[in-house]
Amino acid sequence: MPASERLTAVYELPGPPEEAERLARLISFEETVEVPLDFPLPNAIRDGIVGKPGPAVAARDGRFRVAIDFPAALAEGGLGTLLNLVFGNASIWPGVRLVDLRLTEDLLSRFKGPNHGVDGLRRMLGAKGRPLLATALKPMGTSDADLAATAAAFFRGGGDIAKDDQNIVDGSFVHFRTRVSRIAEATARESARLGRPCLYLPHLSGPQEELEARLDFVLKEGLRGVLICPAIVGLDQTRRLAESRSAVIMAHPSFSGAFYADRSHGIEPSLYLGTMTRLLGADVTVFPNAGGRFALTPDECRAIAARCAEPLGRLAPAWPSPGGGMSLDRAPELARDFGPDALWLVGGRLLMSPGGPEAGARAFRDAIARAFPEG
Amino acid sequence: MPASERLTAVYELPGPPEEAERLARLISFEETVEVPLDFPLPNAIRDGIVGKPGPAVAARDGRFRVAIDFPAALAEGGLGTLLNLVFGNASIWPGVRLVDLRLTEDLLSRFKGPNHGVDGLRRMLGAKGRPLLATALKPMGTSDADLAATAAAFFRGGGDIAKDDQNIVDGSFVHFRTRVSRIAEATARESARLGRPCLYLPHLSGPQEELEARLDFVLKEGLRGVLICPAIVGLDQTRRLAESRSAVIMAHPSFSGAFYADRSHGIEPSLYLGTMTRLLGADVTVFPNAGGRFALTPDECRAIAARCAEPLGRLAPAWPSPGGGMSLDRAPELARDFGPDALWLVGGRLLMSPGGPEAGARAFRDAIARAFPEG
Repeated sequence: MPASERLTAVYELPGPPEEAERLARLISFEETVEVPLDFPLPNAIRDGIVGKPGPAVAARDGRFRVAIDFPAALAEGGLGTLLNLVFGNASIWPGVRLVDLRLTEDLLSRFKGPNHGVDGLRRMLGAKGRPLLATALKPMGTSDADLAATAAAFFRGGGDIAKDDQNIVDGSFVHFRTRVSRIAEATARESARLGRPCLYLPHLSGPQEELEARLDFVLKEGLRGVLICPAIVGLDQTRRLAESRSAVIMAHPSFSGAFYADRSHGIEPSLYLGTMTRLLGADVTVFPNAGGRFALTPDECRAIAARCAEPLGRLAPAWPSPGGGMSLDRAPELARDFGPDALWLVGGRLLMSPGGPEAGARAFRDAIARAFPEG
Repeated sequence: MPASERLTAVYELPGPPEEAERLARLISFEETVEVPLDFPLPNAIRDGIVGKPGPAVAARDGRFRVAIDFPAALAEGGLGTLLNLVFGNASIWPGVRLVDLRLTEDLLSRFKGPNHGVDGLRRMLGAKGRPLLATALKPMGTSDADLAATAAAFFRGGGDIAKDDQNIVDGSFVHFRTRVSRIAEATARESARLGRPCLYLPHLSGPQEELEARLDFVLKEGLRGVLICPAIVGLDQTRRLAESRSAVIMAHPSFSGAFYADRSHGIEPSLYLGTMTRLLGADVTVFPNAGGRFALTPDECRAIAARCAEPLGRLAPAWPSPGGGMSLDRAPELARDFGPDALWLVGGRLLMSPGGPEAGARAFRDAIARAFPEG
């Protein structure tokens, strides 16, 4: 990689502007040479390794943005190395928030990204011009048979994707196999009866030693992919699993909230749940929608969707999937905010529909049809 | 596992107390069944699965602590499953901070914990009754020969452990091998000359696909362990690597700061950098010491050390390793705050000593000898 190639990380920092610029200079040292500013650095290292901060630019809440250019070669070790470079020790500084990341084409070309993405999942499901409808199989403690029945009813009502709730976990591989087989059978039966593809995505969790074998079991069952929590399984481990099989990867934000629940440090949610999650190969990225019980604002949610769709090397666009406290009366708002390329994830309220999951799915599909009559 | 076994997670929440208790009730649903409170749950699930919150107890800053008991069986899937249970979606709620975690003996017995711990590392290094002295090989961009020379000089001055700076990364396995061999040779030579064991811990980083092979290479070179960043490599992946070999694991907090840099959400630093890091098998846990350039307070740092030493099933105690902005004049304070069972990590200021790393190491060892004359 030519030494002149640079990647850019943008930080939001506390003001005033001179203070933001001072802090950016410290970060540019911290994330590379990690020595005091008065360390006698050779010129080759000072010029060729240390990050180069630009000027402070006013941002929201009296804070300031500073872009730091780093040599792109420092991120050649992959996703983990990149995260270490742009938000390693910087994650421990008070008031530092990573808000943007611009990689070189060469670095981007090293990521496979979503295996299927927006177009691939549309083809797989035969769904055109409309949002997809997903639900979460739950609650934890429900029998395998009842989870399978819920999935089947949801598909009958027009649902596209039934995923395990991220709280559905299997302590043992034996139970994982039994449970997944049961729901996979019900899914295959319903799919055959309805004459259309229905997707069931089991939750890939458990000890690190078993993840590959569990994923292989899922694919051998004829299923197409999994739900996975990258912050728990590991970001680069998720990337590895996504890259090594052509599974559909639906990423769930469990355990990642500490990165973005507070506005004065961490990582911008659209960067974490949009760009970074797409980089690691998620076809679908679930995020806690505004207006539910979680912390994100409508602007932050729309930004996640924008990051899923924007050009990013040759990586396929991913599906933004708003979830959490979703209800039928919010359908027009969802349609307006996210357009057709969104995967609506409706859990509890759909399962609680007076007519059960089938009626619940139908009501949501009707709402989608009203908002997207061409779909 | 008997259904009656419970684990306890303690949260700090915003007040007033009724509000904290309401939020705790929501969390106890969110982290298990994840359905609205009015969902028609079967009694077996309501009583046997949903977490049981206790009363709100006043804590600092007008916040309140609530302990939630969960069935221990829900964490049978290992470390990832445990994190998902106690801080999965809860990580996305504003104002929620996980401050304590009390596991059952049965759950604790499933973790191997530190391979060597305090006693093992003392035996390995022949160091009794005194803190250990470590440095970081850097800056990034330095030639392999110069890094090796720095390590050798540090050992000659009395240093115990030279670790790679966490910013020292190798994009390719080939360069990792070349660099590590070079420094390992210098370490072995110096160790033979001095007639005492010296430890060099290379930074285990890079693509997930190569981590095991890189670790095996390190051990084959006769080295005893590695530096690793669990938040980047993955917490459960670090546990797997630690468990599968008897390497010394020195954990570095890179990329983990978002969990504890803000006091109103995330995870208590002593829980994350102490208990959790010990659970995943770290023999040494590096933390950003108070008074340096990072965010932690003296109380928080002492709490990390306390968590490293407190009883935790049969897990060995780990070494707390204060680092970041360490200087010689702080030696008495370090001795007082952390006692003999601490690993002092001194980077830039030691390397910058007027007499070089050898004189720097000697000055710190002298300070240690003054504070621990019996050591």
